[in-house]
Amino acid sequence: MKLLVVGSVAFDAIETPFGKTDKILGGAATYISIASSILGVESGIVSVVGGDFPQSDLDMLSGRGVNIEGIEIVKEGKTFFWSGKYHNDLNSRDTLVTEVNVLENFDPKIPESMQDAEILLLGNLHPGVQLSVLEKMKNRPKLVILDTMNFWMDSALDILMQMIAKTDVITINDEEARQLSGEYSLVKAAKKIHEMGPKYVIIKKGEHGALLFHDGKIFAIPALPLEEVFDPTGAGDTFAGGFASYLAKKGSFTFDNMKAALIVGSAMASFTVEKFGTQRLEEVTESDMMERINSFKELTTFEVEV
Amino acid sequence: MKLLVVGSVAFDAIETPFGKTDKILGGAATYISIASSILGVESGIVSVVGGDFPQSDLDMLSGRGVNIEGIEIVKEGKTFFWSGKYHNDLNSRDTLVTEVNVLENFDPKIPESMQDAEILLLGNLHPGVQLSVLEKMKNRPKLVILDTMNFWMDSALDILMQMIAKTDVITINDEEARQLSGEYSLVKAAKKIHEMGPKYVIIKKGEHGALLFHDGKIFAIPALPLEEVFDPTGAGDTFAGGFASYLAKKGSFTFDNMKAALIVGSAMASFTVEKFGTQRLEEVTESDMMERINSFKELTTFEVEV
Repeated sequence: MKLLVVGSVAFDAIETPFGKTDKILGGAATYISIASSILGVESGIVSVVGGDFPQSDLDMLSGRGVNIEGIEIVKEGKTFFWSGKYHNDLNSRDTLVTEVNVLENFDPKIPESMQDAEILLLGNLHPGVQLSVLEKMKNRPKLVILDTMNFWMDSALDILMQMIAKTDVITINDEEARQLSGEYSLVKAAKKIHEMGPKYVIIKKGEHGALLFHDGKIFAIPALPLEEVFDPTGAGDTFAGGFASYLAKKGSFTFDNMKAALIVGSAMASFTVEKFGTQRLEEVTESDMMERINSFKELTTFEVEV
Repeated sequence: MKLLVVGSVAFDAIETPFGKTDKILGGAATYISIASSILGVESGIVSVVGGDFPQSDLDMLSGRGVNIEGIEIVKEGKTFFWSGKYHNDLNSRDTLVTEVNVLENFDPKIPESMQDAEILLLGNLHPGVQLSVLEKMKNRPKLVILDTMNFWMDSALDILMQMIAKTDVITINDEEARQLSGEYSLVKAAKKIHEMGPKYVIIKKGEHGALLFHDGKIFAIPALPLEEVFDPTGAGDTFAGGFASYLAKKGSFTFDNMKAALIVGSAMASFTVEKFGTQRLEEVTESDMMERINSFKELTTFEVEV
């Protein structure tokens, strides 16, 4: 087991300017593990779903080589459900429904087969749950990657800070980085977040790309400019999934590998937004990926001769 | 004469969270020509100032090798004056005072010594004035670069569209690109703006960098992440100046040179914001520039091996 993913496996109902869906497959762990499977990286999910969760979705995941042994099924419970409507610019959205359901009392259990994971990716859950996962690992994974959000900064800051202190790589968006650090400049914000624990700070800026900070060094990537963003749901999770999976594949966590991992994550995320939910990502082949990584090269390569 | 710059030479009074200035030297043409002089590119300014404009500022420009023959001095008039106050995030500002003064009846005269300019950079002025400059050139320059803004889209769209039709390279910010094209997606916006005339479309995104569009190709650069932005005034003009001057130095306007020119412009602009007004830019040496261009290389270079 290279990559252990703890996060939601869920239902989403999405409305964008281009259309709307009924309840479809969603959840951070879902996007992350599909991304891993594209890179041929063995991942395992620890999560919880209700009795209403279709076997066909579980089959899809295991068919892709994802270890689903850690997905607990609470027969009498219902799966986490989120419904949202995106505004015309697709940069903001309103949440219409959040039914936490079985995730409310989620007590992650790590199967023996996943105890040797080299990388632990903690999806955006209550920081107390994230901490408990780390405590349940017999050996600390070589790399702990944390995704979190402003909701936990507002509602559970103390325990979030404990979790952050034990994190190697944190992914966070620009507004959240500012909130967490109290600094407007992202360079200063990243410095303060380093001091909280993480050696690597990734700041996601959506359509403006992402920044990676480590040991005084900075790496910046643009997002791939797209003619049409159809549905942004899951883009951040796919990014984290591509990032973690590339590192899992490499097995070494140098700054150069982190930079490349950022590109892979962004390339993956650029597929996710092309259709509703996981639809586009499920079609992506490794050669599609390579093509898109080449697009990033073309997009960013230059030579200055003064 | 490699580069002819038509734009404001002016006074600014600036307030930022870090301090405030009295009337200091400003104006698009000023920033552009200082940028040119750093690259050792011969530029000439066509502009107008009042009798209140200090000889020492004119001497500073000509001391840097800028041809100031085209700066008309209206003895009984006053120089254009702008005063503004930046908000805490430095991404937005309020204009406190705009005194157009001698710029109101600006009728640009192109000195004979500037008629052979290879590149014409039209700073952000009334599009009617920009058009008249082009008409006054005996031979069309090889490259016409246009800077404009939403103010002219609101107040002089017809004549602006005539000017855009005669433009090779347009520089515009993301909101303006959306307004001009009616498209939210910047990829679609750039396509529509291409159809209006310009073969090259540069979309400036401030702290998020810039995009260059040409013939179906896209190049993206981040802004250099800075610990502190002291005063953003003139950053866009410096960017345009660095861009145009690099192309003037190269003498050839390939896409590869355009890409490099974008980097040079951004590197230049990253100096301007470090102090008030032109203060920092006036200190910059060619070796400072090279160092900052290397920072861009480090910031953006990666190698993915899947």
